[in-house]
Amino acid sequence: MTHPQVAFVPWEDKAVEALLKRLLFDQRDLIPAIAQQHDSGEVLMLAWMSPESLRETLKSGYVCYWSRSRAALWRKGETSGHVQRLVDLRWDCDGDTLLLLVDQKGPACHTNRRSCFYNAVREGVTVSLTSPLASEV
Amino acid sequence: MTHPQVAFVPWEDKAVEALLKRLLFDQRDLIPAIAQQHDSGEVLMLAWMSPESLRETLKSGYVCYWSRSRAALWRKGETSGHVQRLVDLRWDCDGDTLLLLVDQKGPACHTNRRSCFYNAVREGVTVSLTSPLASEV
Repeated sequence: MTHPQVAFVPWEDKAVEALLKRLLFDQRDLIPAIAQQHDSGEVLMLAWMSPESLRETLKSGYVCYWSRSRAALWRKGETSGHVQRLVDLRWDCDGDTLLLLVDQKGPACHTNRRSCFYNAVREGVTVSLTSPLASEV
Repeated sequence: MTHPQVAFVPWEDKAVEALLKRLLFDQRDLIPAIAQQHDSGEVLMLAWMSPESLRETLKSGYVCYWSRSRAALWRKGETSGHVQRLVDLRWDCDGDTLLLLVDQKGPACHTNRRSCFYNAVREGVTVSLTSPLASEV
């Protein structure tokens, strides 16, 4: 598949605020966001967004989550370089879940795997379907 | 793509209980589950599972969620016939999210669309990327 590097156009404030009004954040003011690699369709991870992290994502074009453990904005890849460029944003019929189509640089998972969803059971035994990626030189 | 009708093998109780111990259910005793069409890669929906609904899913081979609004087991497609056959179960690095690879019969969405994630913004305007499927005759 090709990887068109479409130029990201930052959302206008009005459009961002209109979207925030449509979405249903939970009692913690968070909404779950699924990250999917835009061309391969691979589901990479699920994390949470606050209104502020979604605003930043739509202005910058790079995905920013809300870290529940650190209670802080989590600019994906800020330290590792494994950024998620936003290709398209979708939301569901109830407005309570986001689907982020992204272009993931390197691994999405902190275990250095492309996707966080590598655990499965085969013949009654838990297995890792993928191995950590080799480190970049 | 082909749609192999692989025979589902019900999980043994021991394997189910071992998995339940590995997973991190939230304070409501729920875990988010992403449903993805196994062959096309389309993300269909996100819903929640209780330990009981996951047990039923792994024993029956058909996806059963927990309906937060009805506070009851939600056997997907029980009334509509739009069932989700489980093809494979994955879970993430933190054990706090499930990825269900499914074979979805008809629409997954209550709006009669294949996927719940049909909302997007184009040139500042909210659009529906897909239309409801025609009803089956």
